[in-house]
Amino acid sequence: MNITLAIDAMGGDSAPGMVVHGVHLATLRYPSVKFILYGDEAQLDALVRKVGLTADRVSIHHTSKVVSSSMKPSAAIRNAKGSSMRLAIESIAEGHTDAVVSAGNTGAYMAMAKVIIKTLMGIDRPALASFMPNPSGKSLMLDLGANVECVPDHLTKFALMGNVFAKDILGVPSPSVGLLNVGAEDLKGHSAIKETYQFLREAEWLDNFHGFIEGDDIFTGIVDVIVTDGFTGNIALKSAEGTFKMVKTFLETNFKSSLSAKLGYLCVKPVLKKLEYQLDPSRYNGAIFLGLNGIAVKSHGSADATGFSYAIKVAIDMARQQVNKHISQGLAKWHAGQEQQFKAKTLKSDPSVKPDLAIAS
Amino acid sequence: MNITLAIDAMGGDSAPGMVVHGVHLATLRYPSVKFILYGDEAQLDALVRKVGLTADRVSIHHTSKVVSSSMKPSAAIRNAKGSSMRLAIESIAEGHTDAVVSAGNTGAYMAMAKVIIKTLMGIDRPALASFMPNPSGKSLMLDLGANVECVPDHLTKFALMGNVFAKDILGVPSPSVGLLNVGAEDLKGHSAIKETYQFLREAEWLDNFHGFIEGDDIFTGIVDVIVTDGFTGNIALKSAEGTFKMVKTFLETNFKSSLSAKLGYLCVKPVLKKLEYQLDPSRYNGAIFLGLNGIAVKSHGSADATGFSYAIKVAIDMARQQVNKHISQGLAKWHAGQEQQFKAKTLKSDPSVKPDLAIAS
Repeated sequence: MNITLAIDAMGGDSAPGMVVHGVHLATLRYPSVKFILYGDEAQLDALVRKVGLTADRVSIHHTSKVVSSSMKPSAAIRNAKGSSMRLAIESIAEGHTDAVVSAGNTGAYMAMAKVIIKTLMGIDRPALASFMPNPSGKSLMLDLGANVECVPDHLTKFALMGNVFAKDILGVPSPSVGLLNVGAEDLKGHSAIKETYQFLREAEWLDNFHGFIEGDDIFTGIVDVIVTDGFTGNIALKSAEGTFKMVKTFLETNFKSSLSAKLGYLCVKPVLKKLEYQLDPSRYNGAIFLGLNGIAVKSHGSADATGFSYAIKVAIDMARQQVNKHISQGLAKWHAGQEQQFKAKTLKSDPSVKPDLAIAS
Repeated sequence: MNITLAIDAMGGDSAPGMVVHGVHLATLRYPSVKFILYGDEAQLDALVRKVGLTADRVSIHHTSKVVSSSMKPSAAIRNAKGSSMRLAIESIAEGHTDAVVSAGNTGAYMAMAKVIIKTLMGIDRPALASFMPNPSGKSLMLDLGANVECVPDHLTKFALMGNVFAKDILGVPSPSVGLLNVGAEDLKGHSAIKETYQFLREAEWLDNFHGFIEGDDIFTGIVDVIVTDGFTGNIALKSAEGTFKMVKTFLETNFKSSLSAKLGYLCVKPVLKKLEYQLDPSRYNGAIFLGLNGIAVKSHGSADATGFSYAIKVAIDMARQQVNKHISQGLAKWHAGQEQQFKAKTLKSDPSVKPDLAIAS
């Protein structure tokens, strides 16, 4: 499968330099993938030459317009026509590229992607999904910040998409799905989460609903899929990233505090490298908008070139594994199930329908 | 000041053994403080004798009733009369004790405390507050789980109480107060948080409103007081605790993986001890219900004896520093300010009021 990626070259704190370096790292890893960079031609051309990228791998699509990090989503839809982010998104809708990657303004990205790429049938709100580390692997968590206010229907669809993703893309036979809450008992939490709990407990399409999990369970691997609203998910993720960073900085500083600590540091350095590689929550750069009718990956705005190349990796994996085909099939099954349930209920509540007719229908 | 503490001896995962051991540790540290243990006399008597606690320090108030961890708050108010938790709370209201400590059911504790001790004037919802570590000290964070759904008025009062606490109890001259959100820009977040932002930005009683902070800022010390609703606060705290625990377990396991790592571990052990002492988010056991007309401290249900003795320390500190006197004064000032603002607005909108009258009033 020949893959071409659309790259918003102007999004992110250190764009476009960081983006071009990230693309360069990805070209070395994925020799068959092509890239279209959307952004300021003069700047990009100089950067591309500097790192030695050639025209057979990378082309530049010029635009001088950029979506700022403070632009409101509604304003982005109205006023950001012709911007690097919008052109990159449009290239998927027009079939020129297979996925888009941006480190720019999340709200604007999500809003424009929804308008241009559209959502999958039955999905009202796409969710930002990414991986959270644990000692024995990783769990998928969604939403991480795309939807700050969610009703039970949104959370239920997040569970549905997460379940399909874990089953079909990650290959977990019967993924366990947990709902993030302030306690494991079913009387805990606010009304939206309690209602979602009831939906998921009764859902026939969900083989393995674990029930509620708490914040510390995110990092134990107790479930394969963690479902939450975007406000809570974003803060849980950033709280974890902040804790990890604080511990890392503390260790680095204190390992230089005495001669014995310095010596010890030399011996334990491989352990600390492994720690960072395996358990840094910010390592999984590249969150996916699940529920869009196309592949859009969001990189951290503060990512470095290596981080951005991870986000590119995620986009390539999603394109190769045809993630949306799987989610669409999952949604179609769900709709069929809902219809059947609806019919069954209608028949039950209408005694004039004869039993044999009910069976035949 | 002679202090007597009411202890719910039956609350917590390992009660009453853990509680009595925690009290024992506290008696060694605070030679003048007395304790009343509420719970099953036979069990408590045996435990008290075992650790060598004498009647001049510890007395037992018998009850066979216990609030279970799954009991709903409303049921606790109706049906838990005569329970260890309720009797301990009642002892403050009756003036027999200066503060209460429990490791039991948080929701039931909060509900009963509100009914029995009542809240301070102007406080509708007390908040669970505790400290979060950062490299240069600690920040006060509230609410950590008492109120899962909060309107702007609740969040504003949390900011008010946190501000007074930081100023008067922690001695920070002009505490900075931050509102936890999914982004630092003022267009981010849900409606309740945006409205609270406006209130706090315009609040004359708040010298130093920092604005929004993100989840990773909790651990940088960028603000002295972190304000959030109980749902988000609980999950942010537990996410941090989970991350810290995961890292700690990883290091302990991997430091035994090779000879060089074992040697290194011996050298860096003091650094790791210091890390745990300074930066473990779960170290600050003993969350305070701010806004109650009495001192009630909540210990983690899973705390060990040392953890429970920390919670006792918090209760003693709060009693000695007369935390509620300070918060009441802060609230009174706030009410006076609100009244003045209201008057000013009324005068402005009513041109029939003569200017000299307005000044005189």
